[in-house]
This record gives sequence, structure tokens and C-alpha cells, in this order.
Amino acid sequence: MNPILKRLGFRPDDRVVIIHADDLGMCQATIPAVAELFDAGLVSSAATMVPCAWFPAVAAYARATPSADIGVHATLTSEWDAYRWGPLSTRDPASGLLDDEGYFHRTTPAVQERARPDAVAAELHDQINRALAHGIDVTHLDSHMGSAFAPHFLPAYLAAAAHARVPPLVPRLSEERMRAVGMPEEMIAFARNIVPQLEAQGVVMVDHLIGMPLDRHEDRVETAKQLLGSLAPGLTYVIIHPAIDTPELRAIAGDWRARVADYQAFCSAELRAWVQDQGIHVIGWRPIRDVLRGA
Amino acid sequence: MNPILKRLGFRPDDRVVIIHADDLGMCQATIPAVAELFDAGLVSSAATMVPCAWFPAVAAYARATPSADIGVHATLTSEWDAYRWGPLSTRDPASGLLDDEGYFHRTTPAVQERARPDAVAAELHDQINRALAHGIDVTHLDSHMGSAFAPHFLPAYLAAAAHARVPPLVPRLSEERMRAVGMPEEMIAFARNIVPQLEAQGVVMVDHLIGMPLDRHEDRVETAKQLLGSLAPGLTYVIIHPAIDTPELRAIAGDWRARVADYQAFCSAELRAWVQDQGIHVIGWRPIRDVLRGA
Repeated sequence: MNPILKRLGFRPDDRVVIIHADDLGMCQATIPAVAELFDAGLVSSAATMVPCAWFPAVAAYARATPSADIGVHATLTSEWDAYRWGPLSTRDPASGLLDDEGYFHRTTPAVQERARPDAVAAELHDQINRALAHGIDVTHLDSHMGSAFAPHFLPAYLAAAAHARVPPLVPRLSEERMRAVGMPEEMIAFARNIVPQLEAQGVVMVDHLIGMPLDRHEDRVETAKQLLGSLAPGLTYVIIHPAIDTPELRAIAGDWRARVADYQAFCSAELRAWVQDQGIHVIGWRPIRDVLRGA
Repeated sequence: MNPILKRLGFRPDDRVVIIHADDLGMCQATIPAVAELFDAGLVSSAATMVPCAWFPAVAAYARATPSADIGVHATLTSEWDAYRWGPLSTRDPASGLLDDEGYFHRTTPAVQERARPDAVAAELHDQINRALAHGIDVTHLDSHMGSAFAPHFLPAYLAAAAHARVPPLVPRLSEERMRAVGMPEEMIAFARNIVPQLEAQGVVMVDHLIGMPLDRHEDRVETAKQLLGSLAPGLTYVIIHPAIDTPELRAIAGDWRARVADYQAFCSAELRAWVQDQGIHVIGWRPIRDVLRGA
């Protein structure tokens, strides 16, 4: 059984989920969406993108809403065409953090191939420190587009979380699952070795990682029920990308319909009641963080 | 008579205006507004804020619309609360370009007191170069919130324009007008000396600088008629701040109603016909730039 679930009082067969809103503050449309979702009560966690221009609005929301469970979405990529951002820590091309246009690289492979690990460490440090300086009670650290999970960035990622005394998202993916998502064999071999070591050191492991699909948007409540209805026992991280429907969102994201559908579905009383009826336990990162801090 | 108007074939009593859309790319809502205004035909110039997250969308528009007359709005301040940006060139606190939160200072006095002139020079250089690198046929340089007009920043501002071979906006304000807008006496004395020197060197001077009010929004076409109806002969720069009405704009700008009103009024066929009837000549920056380049 996952040690953190045991410490939180769950039983071995309990299905426990963190229903997590990704990309908070990426653009304006995400902020009212997440605020409404926290009010609606089914979403239990969100993570903010500190380098994005709307970060100050997220911080203002967080200061006004201390109950909101908000972590830092470690951001090393800038993936859209019309709307972009770059690092907080440097403009030095030698860092490897910047593409030819002066923004973060667009893709995870690009940043993983080019960025210096010490530059990644400095950038993650600055992102967490800015979140703390703006008054966010940071509950966890996770990784935008998974780029911080590269073996050579992982020490910086874990150190940034340890420095802030917050749990980092580390998924305990099965080898089948890693292959299914296209992870290269050397990363799978690395994960096979590192994951047991990390857990022995007390790092919290998420047993399963799933996400609402971004490539379709129809029948969203039904899709969510299928996703959540197939949960195995243990701790599952359920990633959604909620946003309200605005001209800004449409101008950024080709997958805006799926983002709006996440917002609508996870606001619905129907889905919330269904999750309760299923006996699925929804928790946030804050109780995990606070148990770890008390240890 | 203003030498550039003479070279462009105007007569001494002609009233010539550049109707200029400020803050292009500050946020998403500005981009469709300016695109529609260029189509409508009354607005003759716009300037883009290169450090803002929406700059790539402006560049894509400019590449698709080579006729659009777009300059660089030299940006050294980040004035809103919810949505902010910082320099392209550096993250070094010793530059003086950054406030305590890591963004540009919020106000013109703050950046004028704290930024090193060499850091301003490097930043303006990077802003123009990024605009050129993204394929914008930059027509001019002007200054967001007037911050580049400080005497100790002016050499950097003029040099950045000269380097790109584009005319910089330099207003020939009367001493009465400078006092009326609250300019300190030392800047007025500086302007008294520098303006004739610059004009002798061939720098284009704008004779009058006026703007649509941002503190009210009612009866916008009527306000525009009053403003344009009172023009004196010479070259007048008429500044508007157009944007479409979106949740993004409302979340940023307390003065969003005036910005939406600028967009609506200057799109109107009524105002365009009225300007023509008045015999007011509307020109952009491109013919000025091209005459200067041909000289």
C-alpha cells in the first residue's frame, strides 16, 4: 500500500484521487475557471505557471482564497504559437533555456536536449520563490509537459521541492504505461532504478497518472465517469485543463473545446454526486504536504 | 513649416494627422481591434509592445498583412496589476529595469530614476531586433508611457531608431503644453535646447501630440470630432488605445470602456467620412520612413 495513503488513514483497497487543474494562469481564461471549480468542490488541486503573464492574477486569487490548494507547475516550455513566455531567471543563451526567438523551447525534447541542468535548477528555484514571495501557500511542485522528469533535470526538480518543503509530483508508472506513452527505454530503465530509491527516501509516489483527453471534447461528463470509474486502488492523479470560453483562449489553444469541456464537466453537480456515490476519495496536496512537514 | 510635410508635398496650412493605435499586442483584445481598424481605413499607424506575451500574434498578423503600418512601442514599464511583463534583454537586478517582483517598473518615474541608460539601450535594441527578426517591416519607434523621453534615455532611444533606420516619435511640444502635462522644469529646459538640435540633424518632429481620453468613454465619435476639429496646421499625432471587449481586457484594464470605445468610434464609417469632409490629411509612418531612407 502507498505509504502516504496509510499515513492519511486510508485502507489498501481505497481509491483516492487528486483531481488536478493544470496550467492555472497560463492565460486569463484559466483563472475564473479554476476559481469556480474550487467553489464547486470536486477539483482538489491546481498548479500555476509562474513565468506566464497572468501569474500576478493567480497570486491575488490565492491570497484572497487561502483554502485554494495551489502548487507550482514547473514551466520550462512555451508551446503555443500566438502567445509565449520565457524564463524568470535568465536571458543568457548559454543557459540552453531559450529558443531562437528568445522564449522557452516549444517542446519537451528540445528543452531536455539543450538546457543546462544548473540553469534548470536556478529557474525552478526562481519560480517557487516568486510564488512564495507573492503569498501563495504552495502545496506541491509538478512539471509542465513533463519536462522536469528528464533524468538529468530530476535532481533540480527534487531539490526545488525539498527546499520549499513541498511534495513533488513523482508518478510510479508501470513499465507498460511508460512504453505506451512513448517514453524512451533509457528513461524507463532510469525510472526502474530511481523510483524505489526515492520512495525509500520518503518521496511521495503517485500510483497512477491519468488525464482527460485534449483531442476530443464531446460527452465530457460521460468521459469523466469512464475515466474515474476504472480507477484502481491507490493514489491517482487526474489531470484536467479547465478554462472558460473566451476569445483569448480560442486565439491560443487549438484544443480550447476540450479545456472548456473540462471546466463545464467538473463544475457539474452531477459529476460530483457520481464521484461520491462511487466511494472515490478526493484529496488535495495540502494534507499530504502537511503530513510530510509534521513528520 | 514642418520640413517632413514639405518633403511629402503638403502646404503650410495643411492639417496632417497620424491616427495611431497604441499598445498593439499588449493583450489579445488589441490585435483583432487593430486589424479591423486598418481594414476600416481611418487608423494609419500602430505600435507593438514586443515584451508582451502576445507579440508573436502581432508578428503573424504583420507578416500576413504587409500593408499594415506597424512600429515598435518601446516598452520599459509594466503598469497593470493582474497581468505583467518584463525585459527581453536581462534579468540582472543591476540593470535597474526590474521592480521587486521581477517585472518592469509600474511607472515612468520609477524606471527613469532606477534604470541604467546602458541597460535601456540594450533593451530597446533587443525589442527592435526581435520585431525585425519576426518579419515586421518596422515603420517607426515610439515610447510606451513616454518613459524613453527622459533626457538620460533619449540617446539610447534615438540610437535604436537610427540603427533600424526608422523615424523615432519626437514631439515638438510647446512649453505651455509641457507644463500642462506636468513635465518637470528641468525636462522642459532640456527640450528647449535639444529639439532644435535634433531637427537640425534631420530628426522628424511631430508638431502636436493629442490623445483620446482614457478616463471617459461616452459619445466617442463626438469626442473624436471635437479633438480632430480643433487641429492646428502641421503634423499631429493622435493616439488611441483600441481593443475589443473581452473578459481578458476587462480583467486587465480599469479603463477598458474607453479602449473599446476607441475601437468602435474609429471603425465607424461616420467618423471616417467626417475626417475626409474636414479636409484633414491622414498619413502613416511608412511614407515618412521611406522619404527619410531615400534621402
